[in-house]
Amino acid sequence: PDEQAGRQAVARQQQLTKPAGSLGRLEELSVWVAARQGTCPPRPFSRPRVVVFAGDHGVAADGVSAYPSEVTGQMVTNFLTGGAAVNALAANAGASVRVVDMAVNGDTSEVVAAHKVRRGSGAIDKDDALTTEQAHAAVTAGRTIADEEIDGGADLLVAGDMGIGNTTPSAVLIAALTANEPVAVVGRGTGIDDNAWMRKTTTIRDALRRARKVVDDPMALLRTAAGADIAALTGFLAQAALRRTPVVLDGVVVGAAAMVAEELAPGARQWWLAGHRSAEPGATMVLDHLDLAPVLELDMRLGEGSGALAALPLVTASVRVLDEMATFAEAGIGSP
Amino acid sequence: PDEQAGRQAVARQQQLTKPAGSLGRLEELSVWVAARQGTCPPRPFSRPRVVVFAGDHGVAADGVSAYPSEVTGQMVTNFLTGGAAVNALAANAGASVRVVDMAVNGDTSEVVAAHKVRRGSGAIDKDDALTTEQAHAAVTAGRTIADEEIDGGADLLVAGDMGIGNTTPSAVLIAALTANEPVAVVGRGTGIDDNAWMRKTTTIRDALRRARKVVDDPMALLRTAAGADIAALTGFLAQAALRRTPVVLDGVVVGAAAMVAEELAPGARQWWLAGHRSAEPGATMVLDHLDLAPVLELDMRLGEGSGALAALPLVTASVRVLDEMATFAEAGIGSP
Repeated sequence: PDEQAGRQAVARQQQLTKPAGSLGRLEELSVWVAARQGTCPPRPFSRPRVVVFAGDHGVAADGVSAYPSEVTGQMVTNFLTGGAAVNALAANAGASVRVVDMAVNGDTSEVVAAHKVRRGSGAIDKDDALTTEQAHAAVTAGRTIADEEIDGGADLLVAGDMGIGNTTPSAVLIAALTANEPVAVVGRGTGIDDNAWMRKTTTIRDALRRARKVVDDPMALLRTAAGADIAALTGFLAQAALRRTPVVLDGVVVGAAAMVAEELAPGARQWWLAGHRSAEPGATMVLDHLDLAPVLELDMRLGEGSGALAALPLVTASVRVLDEMATFAEAGIGSP
Repeated sequence: PDEQAGRQAVARQQQLTKPAGSLGRLEELSVWVAARQGTCPPRPFSRPRVVVFAGDHGVAADGVSAYPSEVTGQMVTNFLTGGAAVNALAANAGASVRVVDMAVNGDTSEVVAAHKVRRGSGAIDKDDALTTEQAHAAVTAGRTIADEEIDGGADLLVAGDMGIGNTTPSAVLIAALTANEPVAVVGRGTGIDDNAWMRKTTTIRDALRRARKVVDDPMALLRTAAGADIAALTGFLAQAALRRTPVVLDGVVVGAAAMVAEELAPGARQWWLAGHRSAEPGATMVLDHLDLAPVLELDMRLGEGSGALAALPLVTASVRVLDEMATFAEAGIGSP
């Protein structure tokens, strides 16, 4: 980030026709954007873009979710036809949506399957999620997708996820990287009952035993305990930072990938804004670990980028304030 | 509100292609809107409208603000030329802005002065803010303005305030109606220093002695301790409820008026949504007293309707979710 542009934004906020600091977090958001764009006042975002990374997970067969694996592919279709929450929330926020199939356990439309690595990632309580080659391919795909979007004009990215069972590997990654126990990090995901919660916790426990052995090697961790969707998210988030493009993070799955991306590319978190605090317990561990303060706390826990998209209008509002408000001098008002 | 439409919205949220409850507060907001509109799915808002009530206060002469009274009129001009925070935030949220001069201590444009009651309300630590006739005229003006806006097509109202010194009468009203002491309710307003804080607290203490005698009579309370701007806000909020039109409340000044409006028209609060929790201490007392849960907590304390307008995109997002998302049946997905 460009600290000089950030300081200019702080100074400009002081000159606008309002008491200094009276817009609270909105002022901070505008400073954040100015420093990421390297210019003050910041530019309105011309092409905010959501990328939803879809994939299935072998652990779904353990009954860790309230839904069967088939729903992942059905939801990909729902994204493409505009019927999902991400579509409504993106439209509300002025963003467009791309979905990529990284490891859906079935056929999807050609338009989304170009980067597909496999059908379903491995059951991480027993096997590796991916081979070494697949982990590399998935991270590279995520980097390529970030490049494609940025080269296509995206000046703000939102990362989203879709995959039945995907909060289980996310919990494993978070527990491994924050040294938390399974019972602390496990959440209700799509809304599981107590029996499914116990199965999920057991799966996380077994997968965590495997993951802890490779916790110091991010690529091995992705291979062992993530999945092609989460590995691609990791590459996407790391590459966006490398390309100096701001990203609004969503909830626990994107957060888990973000933690691994920060391991792969230390400092990448400077390019990420936490859209919200998900209701999933692991999400708060991610925020604490990455030292990110969420914009919203609305008890959301859907994924798909939904929490990030709920926050996006506040980011654009902060930019408009800094761009459009008159200064005291311009308005002919004496500052105090 | 229409409880049947609310129940239909709850039921529809269960059928949409996402885990039940996974959009958290956004789902509740959509239910709130559906019940206020009396229809499910709710209609997109066609004309969200902000009305900013401007007025000066005699207590400003005590040095209770960081700014002189002249700034009120200057800011009215700033609203009309589009340079204020409310303009940028309204544009971001798709709302239009109206400003009304109820008691600015100087001349303002004819377009805003049609309902003006006087030049500056009285210094409430020593005198009544208004005469009985002026209090009546101001409340009636607020009611008329609500009628004008609703008859003009506004289907969502945002109430805002502008007036140097206006957090002082607001603090008095809140302290009187919640039985709190001056030191508990006094805030930094536009950003006053410790000496001004002591002056403001003394002014509130003296005004509160006068206000407590009439706390059971809302019209007398407005006459004694409010001002024409706050009295008009009170009428506006009460009339919006009578006209079954939802309102997004802003911070401590609007909140103080809302408390009086609820006294004048019990149950009116069912038509109000709290946009945010202002950093002013009195704002939290208002929220507790009216049993309203704020959408945002962003440490904002500007007024003008700014906090309500920051929340508005989340309200429109909630409506879009309920309107635009596919059901499980429509998407051909089995619900769990």
